[in-house]
Amino acid sequence: MEHPFKKLSGRKVKTGRFVIVQDQVLVNGKEQPYDYLEIKPGVCILPIKDGRVILQKQYRYPVQSWEWELPGGFIDAGETAEQAAVRELKEETGCAAKRLVPLGAFYPSFGSTDEKIYLFLAFCGNLSRHSREPGEVIELHEISIEEMKRLIASGSFMHGAGLAAWARYISGEYDKF
Amino acid sequence: MEHPFKKLSGRKVKTGRFVIVQDQVLVNGKEQPYDYLEIKPGVCILPIKDGRVILQKQYRYPVQSWEWELPGGFIDAGETAEQAAVRELKEETGCAAKRLVPLGAFYPSFGSTDEKIYLFLAFCGNLSRHSREPGEVIELHEISIEEMKRLIASGSFMHGAGLAAWARYISGEYDKF
Repeated sequence: MEHPFKKLSGRKVKTGRFVIVQDQVLVNGKEQPYDYLEIKPGVCILPIKDGRVILQKQYRYPVQSWEWELPGGFIDAGETAEQAAVRELKEETGCAAKRLVPLGAFYPSFGSTDEKIYLFLAFCGNLSRHSREPGEVIELHEISIEEMKRLIASGSFMHGAGLAAWARYISGEYDKF
Repeated sequence: MEHPFKKLSGRKVKTGRFVIVQDQVLVNGKEQPYDYLEIKPGVCILPIKDGRVILQKQYRYPVQSWEWELPGGFIDAGETAEQAAVRELKEETGCAAKRLVPLGAFYPSFGSTDEKIYLFLAFCGNLSRHSREPGEVIELHEISIEEMKRLIASGSFMHGAGLAAWARYISGEYDKF
């Protein structure tokens, strides 16, 4: 299908850690501004160990609450998505991935950002020490796949990338081990 | 659980349509900056009509591609989440909601924004004319719930809020009509 937007001009403005793209576009023959955020691609991992899901509870300052979530983070320069997934999983949960299964990518908010997150299912070996970054306040939990399903259905698991990973996992055909 | 972050000072910077909060916080006894985006709350709706899912294909400029998505948008001032869901569903698909079932809320990106999206399942009556905003380039499609499940599993449905709504729907116990 053709692309209905034509970029006429553009600039980027940096405010703190955020880069805002300010383009002027032609859409349906009409000129208009289009602003969006430039955000680095990331990963999110659904870790399974002996048939149980490893998940985290972390305090998230922007929403002022403790939130259930799956491990994840940005892809560093020079890393593949797979390498970032293995690294973040190890850093946040201490889990060494025995096998990594891609669950595809998704866009958290494609009306406002170009951010793309690559999702993975990871089968974990034994847990070792995690290595947290300063300012990360994380608790680890292990629950069964049925408990995870009930946690998702209850509405108390509110992590966008984690819900996306779960949607792909539960709709597909994957081994449990 | 206690809140490990204490706000010491803060300001807001507006860049185009984005408001960036720049706080100075105390976490684990250490002072550090915390920047995040202030974004209005929104809604996303999984519309079902005669046992089939109504979904959209829209060109999304920030990611430069046509994307499958579920209807949604911001909650206007003075509106409840339910009212916004009924309005957005009507505007984008022409569907009048016979019944609206809450699927809870979620946070698209709670490390970077305070955005909260309220999810709904909607049972639709007959479709009438939709009323699009300028710059919206949307196609409507209807597929079965099994086809939707395969579309999600395939990885080609990449809409964050739509995946979150699907995760809640497929993990819970809901009627199909």
